[in-house]
Amino acid sequence: MLKNKKPIKAKKLSGFRDFFAEDVAVREYVINTFKKVFEKYGYEPLETPALEYSNISLGETGKEAEKLFYRFKDQGNRDIMLRYEVMIPMCRSVAENFGKITFPYKRYQIQKVWRADKPQKGRFREFTQCDADTIGSDSVIWDAEFIQMGIEAMRDLGFKKYQANISNRKFLNGIIKFAGASQNDFIPICLSIDKMPKIGQKAVHNELLEVRNIKPEIVDKIMNIITLEDKSRKLIKKFKQLLAKTPIALEGLKELEEIFDYLKSCKVGEEYYCFAPFIARGLAYYTGPVWEFEVLEGNVGSVAGCGRYDNTIGRFLGKKVPATGGSFGIERLVEIIKSRKMIELKSNPTKVLVTIFNKNVFKTSLETANVLRKNNINTMLYSDPEEKLDKQLKYANKKGIPFVIIIGPDELKQDKVTLKDMKTGKQQTLNLKQVIQELK
Amino acid sequence: MLKNKKPIKAKKLSGFRDFFAEDVAVREYVINTFKKVFEKYGYEPLETPALEYSNISLGETGKEAEKLFYRFKDQGNRDIMLRYEVMIPMCRSVAENFGKITFPYKRYQIQKVWRADKPQKGRFREFTQCDADTIGSDSVIWDAEFIQMGIEAMRDLGFKKYQANISNRKFLNGIIKFAGASQNDFIPICLSIDKMPKIGQKAVHNELLEVRNIKPEIVDKIMNIITLEDKSRKLIKKFKQLLAKTPIALEGLKELEEIFDYLKSCKVGEEYYCFAPFIARGLAYYTGPVWEFEVLEGNVGSVAGCGRYDNTIGRFLGKKVPATGGSFGIERLVEIIKSRKMIELKSNPTKVLVTIFNKNVFKTSLETANVLRKNNINTMLYSDPEEKLDKQLKYANKKGIPFVIIIGPDELKQDKVTLKDMKTGKQQTLNLKQVIQELK
Repeated sequence: MLKNKKPIKAKKLSGFRDFFAEDVAVREYVINTFKKVFEKYGYEPLETPALEYSNISLGETGKEAEKLFYRFKDQGNRDIMLRYEVMIPMCRSVAENFGKITFPYKRYQIQKVWRADKPQKGRFREFTQCDADTIGSDSVIWDAEFIQMGIEAMRDLGFKKYQANISNRKFLNGIIKFAGASQNDFIPICLSIDKMPKIGQKAVHNELLEVRNIKPEIVDKIMNIITLEDKSRKLIKKFKQLLAKTPIALEGLKELEEIFDYLKSCKVGEEYYCFAPFIARGLAYYTGPVWEFEVLEGNVGSVAGCGRYDNTIGRFLGKKVPATGGSFGIERLVEIIKSRKMIELKSNPTKVLVTIFNKNVFKTSLETANVLRKNNINTMLYSDPEEKLDKQLKYANKKGIPFVIIIGPDELKQDKVTLKDMKTGKQQTLNLKQVIQELK
Repeated sequence: MLKNKKPIKAKKLSGFRDFFAEDVAVREYVINTFKKVFEKYGYEPLETPALEYSNISLGETGKEAEKLFYRFKDQGNRDIMLRYEVMIPMCRSVAENFGKITFPYKRYQIQKVWRADKPQKGRFREFTQCDADTIGSDSVIWDAEFIQMGIEAMRDLGFKKYQANISNRKFLNGIIKFAGASQNDFIPICLSIDKMPKIGQKAVHNELLEVRNIKPEIVDKIMNIITLEDKSRKLIKKFKQLLAKTPIALEGLKELEEIFDYLKSCKVGEEYYCFAPFIARGLAYYTGPVWEFEVLEGNVGSVAGCGRYDNTIGRFLGKKVPATGGSFGIERLVEIIKSRKMIELKSNPTKVLVTIFNKNVFKTSLETANVLRKNNINTMLYSDPEEKLDKQLKYANKKGIPFVIIIGPDELKQDKVTLKDMKTGKQQTLNLKQVIQELK
């Protein structure tokens, strides 16, 4: 049957990955760290479907994002799409269950998202987002709490040098107004200035002029303000004077001050956060504070996009429902943790391989394996009683299984087994009770 | 801005679900139970992408399954589909990484799958499969090991009455041959007789005649064999005599005997497994032992589909790679566990709510929350310092948060806090050290 057919090519889609045991272990470490921190701050879990009606996202993320939607018609001709991000489906869920939810609703959500982006190093079409949000309160305390949580999560993951770069859409809107730009240009301008850390000041300047078609005198004004080099809190004072006649900017600056006050109260080290005027975030829905997390060691860049989005849930309800939070993309974190060996990598959850000396001891080997399992020791039974012992030991080595049990005729007579430590090579002939003690 | 637009309808797709905190807790309990059992037997984790080229599945699962694929063209005009089941993508992954994998490869995989099925009670378009498989060995010991693991997982989940119904595709093929049916009718006949427990003997009889167009004398012969009521091991002996001249049937019966021997060696209770000749499984790819798990209490039916599929990986490689394993669908298990209250349901991972008596104590409340978090106690800070205490306590109740901390002017003076147990109503005024001890 097999011989008559041409083999089908075994190939995964570009931008997608298989995760083997070691990959899964690192990913679970990162995910569980976030989960633990989010729960420590009183956030509860939520999961939403992978597929949603497209209309819940259309017009909200911005045109550049919409190009990357995995969007198609299902068997019932419904216009549907894969989860592009975790936040919008959560807003749909909150709106759909509005009467049943007690607010403020603090939820975290750790799920995969799909984007038909150009695959490149560190950028995938399937990746995991770790989100946490507070819904139903307009206090910027919850913006600040997310920053506090994020800093704690980064610390718990083992990072040393990282920071939250904080700005505010109201403040940015004030700058645009102050510079004389039209309100319609606000999101395009945000998209460009947000690229500052990546492409540099000059390229942003050119993009504003040539791609966004902003008048040169306006671009100059914006760039002068946004690129002030001082990143400290004193900067807020300067801006307050400069933008004294732009109320929306002052409102944004006041929110920034509240956030900094909160972080100070929590004794969060000042090296972990700063005011970064050029942080605008690309997505269209942000309405107040915006911030990202940046890993400073190595050329890593942003690992989280965050901000307040007071109008997004309202799109479903026709009334304002304030909300704020953020989204860590775990892919870069996982890569750094792996490449810098920040945790001990376990390539296999199996603790011990029970070998099969020959057919006659199969039953004893099986019984031994079952006893170890009853004692919660992860135990694999070797699969082929015809295989030479030597090859079985090699198998354990290749699989990264740290211990091996050998039951030969001698051991059988003594009612004992030989336990071999594959790292040190040390062998001990023990009874099962002793083996269990050694392995626990 | 919000007022000018007509609200968008917040509606999830039919057949899809949001999982809130309590749902997530039960699902994680089930998933972690499977994970623990699979790892106890030496299986390692694997995750594959949600999207794959459609050609890896086409022609393998059978036409009836293909109608349910979420299949579409992506931006690059690739013919792609969502994971319909976990097993085929694993086969693709094994074939794609064949040179890198050490065999036998024992892996488990717990991921979501998507099927454009008609939604109905207990049947969803998005659900989770828990799979475990042994790849690269043709010994039916691994078929038997899966049955052993499955029985253990069901026990660990808290079920009392359940069983593995075991049959064999070779044996079934022998019956077809013995009855005089054509080999081309094998899969259609399997599809029909597998429905026996659901639709009954008579309906299967009719379906074979009218839908599958099998000759009446052949249908009679098949039905006579398949419906023998004895389910015990003795049945194997009867079949051995009846099918003595059909080698493929004898081969299947021998495999069944080996499986029963293994289970007996492991002292698995005989009430947990039986020979069920009519178990055929619908999917086209099975080649040897097939079995399912059935929950016997209540009208639950099958919760796992399993079997050997020695040709599926070979489709990619042009050579045979034996493989066997099974797939638990967790949805029914989750529903039963919830409705029968088999575990204590935790509606919120938060342990304590720190209330805010008034604005003046906000800082102290925040500090208190941070100290508890440092001690790994899941702590929520109430979000609105203007809210009355009474309402804050109600919030804790609604959210299912078991403890509340109150810091009023009296407590502030004493440098203590009041800890209230929301279940018993008991209140104690304690210092923070004592609170930590109480909550740990």
